[in-house]
Amino acid sequence: MTTTSREINARCSVARSLEVLGEKWALLVVREAFFGVTRFADFRARLGVAPDVLTARLETLVEGGVLERRPYRDQGQRQRDEYVLTEAGAALKTVLAAFVAWGDEHRPSGFGPSVVYVEETTDKPVRLAFLTEDGRELAPEAVAVLPGPGWAGPPA
Amino acid sequence: MTTTSREINARCSVARSLEVLGEKWALLVVREAFFGVTRFADFRARLGVAPDVLTARLETLVEGGVLERRPYRDQGQRQRDEYVLTEAGAALKTVLAAFVAWGDEHRPSGFGPSVVYVEETTDKPVRLAFLTEDGRELAPEAVAVLPGPGWAGPPA
Repeated sequence: MTTTSREINARCSVARSLEVLGEKWALLVVREAFFGVTRFADFRARLGVAPDVLTARLETLVEGGVLERRPYRDQGQRQRDEYVLTEAGAALKTVLAAFVAWGDEHRPSGFGPSVVYVEETTDKPVRLAFLTEDGRELAPEAVAVLPGPGWAGPPA
Repeated sequence: MTTTSREINARCSVARSLEVLGEKWALLVVREAFFGVTRFADFRARLGVAPDVLTARLETLVEGGVLERRPYRDQGQRQRDEYVLTEAGAALKTVLAAFVAWGDEHRPSGFGPSVVYVEETTDKPVRLAFLTEDGRELAPEAVAVLPGPGWAGPPA
């Protein structure tokens, strides 16, 4: 059976995630949301992104269920929307932490890590790791990827 | 002190990772590389991506240290390059696993997971988790993000 690239990407969890998160700036908008940024002007100032691009990214992230709009009104101003992480958005903490760990190791800035992930109650560093069902930690080399039920066909 | 968005992004591990991995198709090229795809024609067939875009992504991934070129020659053909994961590229397993877990949960295709991460020696499923230094597993909600030594300034 021949599998088309369209079928492969429609079923691939990575490709489906990137539909929402793969556009330039999208994950950086999420990064800022984790720091508590909610307002258009603040996203714009922090990211240095053109307003039309930011508008498009926020729209994709809202449609993709990562951010939700909440109306607010500053004194003497019209009502505007702010953008807050949904539950699905908050679950991107693991994705961002994976990027941070990889970037710190393989794309160092020379200034040291920009952020550190810590246990909230102790401020001690935490790391991302692969765990077996019974809680044993595995080195990444001991982890393999197998086709799952939604697999669209063999690799070329 | 005012911090420019340029300074923030230059020091941010996520932004620096996305310089290499954030362009459309880049992480899908890496996905295929993990399945053992090495040749231009095979990447192209699997991804359904235009050749000029694929050429550009492979170049970025080579420059970013994720893939390396290795010459090969099929019988009766000219010498060509194939593309294999470097050590830094292989370390992206965690990033892809984080995307897969998030996509399976929050962007399900309806067909079930396309791939599953397993322990190589047992084929039993593994998961990504946050661990403390002494090996305790933490729920993502118990993990906070703090400024690190390379922090470029306060959020807006």
